[in-house]
Amino acid sequence: MTKTKINADLIKERSKCTFNITELTNLIDGGAHLTEERKKREEKVLKEGIHIDQVPSEYLSHKEKYELAIKKASLMFKLLRKWQEEENTGMENYRAVLGGALGSAILEDGSPLTLHYVMFIPTLMGQGTVEQQAYWIGRAFNVDIIGTYAQTELGHGTFVRGLETTATYDPKTKEFVLHSPSLTAYKWWPGGLAHTANYCIVMAQLYTAGKCHGIHAFIVQLRDEETHMPLPGIKVGEIGAKLGMNGTNNGFLGLEHVRIPREHMLMKNAKVLEDGTYVNSPSSKLTYGTMMFVRVVLVNDMCNYMAKAVTTATRYSAVRHQSQPKPDEPEPQILDYVTQQHKLFVGIASVHAFKLSANWLWNMYNNVTAELESGDMERLPELHALSCCLKAVSTADAAQCVERCRLACGGHGYMLSSNLPTSYGLVTAACTYEGENTVLLLQTARYLVKAWQQAAGASQLTPTVAYIRRVTSGRRAPPFDSSLAGLIDAFHTVAAGKIGLCVANIEKRQKEGLSYEDAWNMTSVQLTQASEAHCRAILLLTYHEQTEMQCKNASPELREVLSQLVDLYVVYWTLQCVGDLLRFTSISERDIERLQRWYEDLLSQLRPNAVGLVDAFDIRDEILHSALGAYDGRVYERLMEEALKSPLNAEPVNRSFHQYLKPLMQGKL
Amino acid sequence: MTKTKINADLIKERSKCTFNITELTNLIDGGAHLTEERKKREEKVLKEGIHIDQVPSEYLSHKEKYELAIKKASLMFKLLRKWQEEENTGMENYRAVLGGALGSAILEDGSPLTLHYVMFIPTLMGQGTVEQQAYWIGRAFNVDIIGTYAQTELGHGTFVRGLETTATYDPKTKEFVLHSPSLTAYKWWPGGLAHTANYCIVMAQLYTAGKCHGIHAFIVQLRDEETHMPLPGIKVGEIGAKLGMNGTNNGFLGLEHVRIPREHMLMKNAKVLEDGTYVNSPSSKLTYGTMMFVRVVLVNDMCNYMAKAVTTATRYSAVRHQSQPKPDEPEPQILDYVTQQHKLFVGIASVHAFKLSANWLWNMYNNVTAELESGDMERLPELHALSCCLKAVSTADAAQCVERCRLACGGHGYMLSSNLPTSYGLVTAACTYEGENTVLLLQTARYLVKAWQQAAGASQLTPTVAYIRRVTSGRRAPPFDSSLAGLIDAFHTVAAGKIGLCVANIEKRQKEGLSYEDAWNMTSVQLTQASEAHCRAILLLTYHEQTEMQCKNASPELREVLSQLVDLYVVYWTLQCVGDLLRFTSISERDIERLQRWYEDLLSQLRPNAVGLVDAFDIRDEILHSALGAYDGRVYERLMEEALKSPLNAEPVNRSFHQYLKPLMQGKL
Repeated sequence: MTKTKINADLIKERSKCTFNITELTNLIDGGAHLTEERKKREEKVLKEGIHIDQVPSEYLSHKEKYELAIKKASLMFKLLRKWQEEENTGMENYRAVLGGALGSAILEDGSPLTLHYVMFIPTLMGQGTVEQQAYWIGRAFNVDIIGTYAQTELGHGTFVRGLETTATYDPKTKEFVLHSPSLTAYKWWPGGLAHTANYCIVMAQLYTAGKCHGIHAFIVQLRDEETHMPLPGIKVGEIGAKLGMNGTNNGFLGLEHVRIPREHMLMKNAKVLEDGTYVNSPSSKLTYGTMMFVRVVLVNDMCNYMAKAVTTATRYSAVRHQSQPKPDEPEPQILDYVTQQHKLFVGIASVHAFKLSANWLWNMYNNVTAELESGDMERLPELHALSCCLKAVSTADAAQCVERCRLACGGHGYMLSSNLPTSYGLVTAACTYEGENTVLLLQTARYLVKAWQQAAGASQLTPTVAYIRRVTSGRRAPPFDSSLAGLIDAFHTVAAGKIGLCVANIEKRQKEGLSYEDAWNMTSVQLTQASEAHCRAILLLTYHEQTEMQCKNASPELREVLSQLVDLYVVYWTLQCVGDLLRFTSISERDIERLQRWYEDLLSQLRPNAVGLVDAFDIRDEILHSALGAYDGRVYERLMEEALKSPLNAEPVNRSFHQYLKPLMQGKL
Repeated sequence: MTKTKINADLIKERSKCTFNITELTNLIDGGAHLTEERKKREEKVLKEGIHIDQVPSEYLSHKEKYELAIKKASLMFKLLRKWQEEENTGMENYRAVLGGALGSAILEDGSPLTLHYVMFIPTLMGQGTVEQQAYWIGRAFNVDIIGTYAQTELGHGTFVRGLETTATYDPKTKEFVLHSPSLTAYKWWPGGLAHTANYCIVMAQLYTAGKCHGIHAFIVQLRDEETHMPLPGIKVGEIGAKLGMNGTNNGFLGLEHVRIPREHMLMKNAKVLEDGTYVNSPSSKLTYGTMMFVRVVLVNDMCNYMAKAVTTATRYSAVRHQSQPKPDEPEPQILDYVTQQHKLFVGIASVHAFKLSANWLWNMYNNVTAELESGDMERLPELHALSCCLKAVSTADAAQCVERCRLACGGHGYMLSSNLPTSYGLVTAACTYEGENTVLLLQTARYLVKAWQQAAGASQLTPTVAYIRRVTSGRRAPPFDSSLAGLIDAFHTVAAGKIGLCVANIEKRQKEGLSYEDAWNMTSVQLTQASEAHCRAILLLTYHEQTEMQCKNASPELREVLSQLVDLYVVYWTLQCVGDLLRFTSISERDIERLQRWYEDLLSQLRPNAVGLVDAFDIRDEILHSALGAYDGRVYERLMEEALKSPLNAEPVNRSFHQYLKPLMQGKL
């Protein structure tokens, strides 16, 4: 990376950095050996050159984008299969190479094979019997077949029980008949479904002996393995161009009385016997596992996107000079404007806050899963509530962070060569998929309202909602304390206060004659806000505590800057939520003015380390993929180099001049 | 529109509407005759069929998108020229047909000819001498030549004084030599510059007799009129793919000692005589005019985008059913969820609020321009301050509104066929161009700080900042009054309080030893917030007052719903800014809880009229251009129809299967 000339401003910034950048990188990776491993993996993948495009994909047609994505995804899978054979590794390689920042560097706008390993294989593993696993997983793992997972329909996303596709058992032939009874029953959205997968797990309403048993999973062959032609009764195609993810080949699927063998129902949990008898699942909660796993992974993904965006915007802001506030001085770096620091630094802190919270949630997920295996389901609702609100808040915050970074780069952030618009397209999609954010916040709210009622009834509260008792117990809140711990504490008081108000409003509306459901609906705006307040409290506390733990063996220099980031994050959110604190705590106007000053001082303290902090995310240029953000800071040169790759620039005069412009100008059109 | 079958839910919604939809449409248009005129114009343009694409443009390559845009823009100009001849009309037609919602219906992702009539012709008119106008405007108006306007450079946008391009007068040949001394001096961004325009107004630093006289405008020929080949010394091309506006053909321009005749400097204001003598402009403030005009137009454009987005999202929410809150009842329309109403209804109100504010600003602009002509510049700074903050707040609010509407449509809002992503791309661009929003807010803040100092010094205050004196006079604020007028008043108190705090903080920091510029910078986050608070107060007051005036002759039914919208807008923003009200007014917790209840009641009251309210925006399907938002509500059918237009769906098996997927699956890749 140091072979090319480095921008002088960036050299200066790096020389000012007060801490050891590598130390922070190792801390983020979880240890020097893990940094080493990551770097090796990145080198190994990137040296293949699969990510290098002749013409950047943004200039291609929609169809060409798909063809390029297939080429790259196929070469990636081939590579992985080779390593599998060489190193005898399993799924970990898939995840490490295809998931996260490295994968998205190669398939920038999504991959048509993602669902094969993210949903098809895991569902076979989670819901298939031992025999089914033996038959299918090997074939899938070896990519002899390509699968996807079809749940969402044109008419139903969020409300899974409302899905219309039916799977009716025919005991005469021992087959299921899969059918889409209406246009809205068409499967709609699954990645790779359109032209890529030849097999699919279809979620459908199971009917046997005239009775509906709800949603179950079925393996359906979509296309001939040799010719790839859709099989009879299979109506399959792509759903069209989207805001982003145009490499994912999202598809639709209509089924016209398609027959599949009985053995193609995944029967680990529930079964249909040969005679059509339905045998119930031991626990329907077991299937929550995959969903929660995906949400935890999502929170981590969001950190990667935020890290890329703040790296780009921070380096650009160090290179860019603009305006002349003092008549006789040169134009300052835009990073010296406090409004710019305000836009960027909280983004740097957010990466750490969400990364540590994702780790914490991951540990909890593993503990709860282990407890589940031994039949203990007590902590499942708490985990579910946490994963819902953390998914909602992390995706919303990440979208805002990426977009704010893009806008902070001014006009140049609008260029696709900055990579910021494409990142936004991927991040904002996550606000909707895997559970729409408002719906998820309301799921958490349900848990919180229940916890409030339990607290009032004096039953035991799970750890993450134990704070509620402080308010229900009627104890007076302590005087406002503007230390870090005091602020975090205040967020818990706010959350509890908001939950309490929601409960009171629901009850009031019930007394006025509304049903519980209508009272809930009327209060739902406040409920989402209570849920978010709960999540903010958890995030602040987790970020603070996990940083303390993480820093135990860190150098004093690093500890200082990391604790400044925690302070910044907590004070930023306090000022954002100052109305809540005024309502539910005894914070005073003087406190607020002091906090504002503290915030501005923190921006100044962090300013010299800004570039060092984003360097520490250690994102290779190939992964960052941004003309504005590269390590060497050759911003303007790269913008021009990227512009010259546009096929329009290959000819001095476009043919449309002769066809339209010249006739127009000469009055002959 | 009623020929096709209308969705049953929409029929029901329309029958519930309590007011006359046409009455509201007429009110919005400014009178029944103006509605009629608009409709005629729309019919006249749309019946030409220029907007109809064989393949929707989202499937084309970047180059093909440009070619399509040229085709459409040329046909539109041809049409306009025909009308001009038939009806002997002038620029108004350009603006009415090409600007606003109608123009963007035909050139959905921007036009390469926009700057020709938005900047090239107006600059000739505003800055050319009578002789120059006589020579150039006819040619431009008749589209004998195609022009653009090049100001922004790769290295400078916001800071116009920092532009690097030079125009050096050579008295020997009576020519100017235009030159780009560096890469960052390249012009970058102008629409149509890349491959479309053959002439360009170039803004450059004027040098004569060894002295720099700052930025002036020069007409430079870029391309041969016959061959369209770039002329010697002209380095021109396109800047590459962007988040949106990929039809605008934004370009770069490098000049290598390009010589133009002296007469090509626009000399209405400043002049260079034959011998090189520079004659100063009578007033540099005169050139502010165009800039402010463009900002006023922008606020109006933002209303069009918001109206389209809320129309789409509201109709979709009436058609879409999801979930089952009550076990034995059918799935409700998602418009019945209060969280959904919360996302949409404030958007409907925002359209009215900004439309009325834009009209109000437009009147003020015309008055001030008239005063300017007679040499009176007193109100110019006030107008400037208003246009800055209204541009910033309207573009930011519009971007948020469109994006919230998109997200409110769930996954389907992510489809380009919803038209919501493309709208967002256009709206968010406006947060950056014509003055970056943070920079604009700080310009308004400068005016507010000055006003504060004037108030303290007892000089006269201009009308829109007169409220400041309430605070500087030291009078105690009256007790909080939660009526509509009381709330609007409270926003003024907040704005004054924030300005006062900024002034105090700047002074404090100066006392601590900082220069004024550094103290300003350290306080700038708060300054942008004060500026926004000022703008919110103005918006609320204007919306309220203008609605009262507008409604004088309206029916009681319409008056009622419009006043509910005003209430909703004011209460929504009160709750959003509740922290500010708690800090600067005597609002109590009980007031807040009452306001929350009022807000929720307003949502319920507006619910039956939601579809009627968006129908009243009267946006033709061709202009709305959304599978989710069409008048007939055939949402799912249209989504499928649009999907089937994807060229990928023209073949059952894509060639990449044979090239990559099959070899991959058979281990032969």
